[in-house]
Amino acid sequence: MELKEYLKERKAIIDREILKYLPSVPPFGKRLYEAVKYSLTVGGKRLRPILCMAGCEVVGGNYEEALTPACAIEMIHTYSLIHDDLPAMDNDTLRRGHPTTWYKFDEATAILAGDALLNRAFEVLSQWNFDCDRKIKVIEEISKASGMLGMVLGQQCDMDAEGRKDVTLEELLFIHRHKTGRLITASVVSGGITGGGSEEEIGTLKKYGDSIGLAFQIIDDVLDVIGDQNKIGKNVGSDLEKGKVTFVTFFGVDGAKRKAREEIEKAISALELFPAKKNELLKKLAHFIVEREY
Amino acid sequence: MELKEYLKERKAIIDREILKYLPSVPPFGKRLYEAVKYSLTVGGKRLRPILCMAGCEVVGGNYEEALTPACAIEMIHTYSLIHDDLPAMDNDTLRRGHPTTWYKFDEATAILAGDALLNRAFEVLSQWNFDCDRKIKVIEEISKASGMLGMVLGQQCDMDAEGRKDVTLEELLFIHRHKTGRLITASVVSGGITGGGSEEEIGTLKKYGDSIGLAFQIIDDVLDVIGDQNKIGKNVGSDLEKGKVTFVTFFGVDGAKRKAREEIEKAISALELFPAKKNELLKKLAHFIVEREY
Repeated sequence: MELKEYLKERKAIIDREILKYLPSVPPFGKRLYEAVKYSLTVGGKRLRPILCMAGCEVVGGNYEEALTPACAIEMIHTYSLIHDDLPAMDNDTLRRGHPTTWYKFDEATAILAGDALLNRAFEVLSQWNFDCDRKIKVIEEISKASGMLGMVLGQQCDMDAEGRKDVTLEELLFIHRHKTGRLITASVVSGGITGGGSEEEIGTLKKYGDSIGLAFQIIDDVLDVIGDQNKIGKNVGSDLEKGKVTFVTFFGVDGAKRKAREEIEKAISALELFPAKKNELLKKLAHFIVEREY
Repeated sequence: MELKEYLKERKAIIDREILKYLPSVPPFGKRLYEAVKYSLTVGGKRLRPILCMAGCEVVGGNYEEALTPACAIEMIHTYSLIHDDLPAMDNDTLRRGHPTTWYKFDEATAILAGDALLNRAFEVLSQWNFDCDRKIKVIEEISKASGMLGMVLGQQCDMDAEGRKDVTLEELLFIHRHKTGRLITASVVSGGITGGGSEEEIGTLKKYGDSIGLAFQIIDDVLDVIGDQNKIGKNVGSDLEKGKVTFVTFFGVDGAKRKAREEIEKAISALELFPAKKNELLKKLAHFIVEREY
């Protein structure tokens, strides 16, 4: 299948399924429900849930088994965007081509909608009708990746680095690996755990995830310089404006692209553990990450 | 044992144990770690973890078994206070006699410290060395109570009600039950699940929790009017200032106190299911909730 077609199909599955994980509309406080629903349906590539489903399939599972962790991860990703966009953080008004949650609703509602989504992710995971041991492993994998030694820490480091000119490459790598990398790795790894992958297979998925995660963030840095705002759906040039040191600062646009391609090569060679017929989609997804324009 | 002594001992256990659940200090982004640690150690009655341990004991368990859910619940409670205090929410600068987290650090760090604590709670629960089925039940209980049909919804409703004069008693009850009640109930219920309580016992703990949770919030409303700021450790009179409708608005100070005592009577009669020797502490805790001055 063409990758473009595949991405479209899988995105449609998540767009449909994720709404099933919303709770009932409450008698009071409907604004929270509306803000959560708005944030979940306003677009996005659904890359993380797609990786989760693909990780499940590559170890021999069925993608439908992985729908719960896939949607939980997308909820966590969405919460992180809502909070990152807040005035006290990145102060962004445009995301995925639409007003950010705080801009559309208000700050308090956006803070609570983020809290609600993070919480909801663990709620749906705990209610997942699945093998108890694997379920706990998936909850552990996701919570570690999104937590205070994972994504939240990455965002803190990103805030701390803003406007500083003395950010080293080591620090920048730390930021990227935590802010973006860890949850991308957790996506493909939780899929692998769900599908019953062996320890060796999970290790391979981890290497793959770490490499594509880093490449993904490097390309994000590149797109912030050379991207088309209409395609990306968010304000470009914001890194420079905020005085952020990025991969482009260190290596220039071409150098950064080269680094991203190197990571993708690493990811692809890790995949050799799996039969050629099975690993094809993860390979294509890796290529998509460096070639994407949005 | 005297209740005062018991509360002091149990608080000391939590004060000590909760720090063990912090992750290692990261090489970058230490500010996040510091804000989390500050928020966890700045005081508080530790009522929820004490209820969790007591719930475990009343069904025949050992309180030490319940330390993980007890500390996880205190992390969730702490995160909710950090976010509630933010300028976009209640805009409070004083809590437990100390500067609030955003006031001591900054808004972005406080948002992230809250996120980190909510996330960390599920991380430590997933890593808890305990029976898989009970562990999942506890995660489900806690996540439902704190989530978008629980505590987060309560806070949203509280924000929506601010300044409105048409808040009905039904709406106020909904706010109180969600904002405060659900997590208090989940505290004692998770303790009961941890200790291996029967379905009937868990049902009783739920009734007990619902009643003391409501009484707790009613007394909070009362203390905001007649409390001593030095004892409570937060600004008093803030409900009136913010135009909040409370139990005191509906029933006056004495009427509200009477309502709280009625709830405590309900809680105590529910406890009759347990042997007199075993239920004594939960009874004393219920009385403490209406008689407290802080």
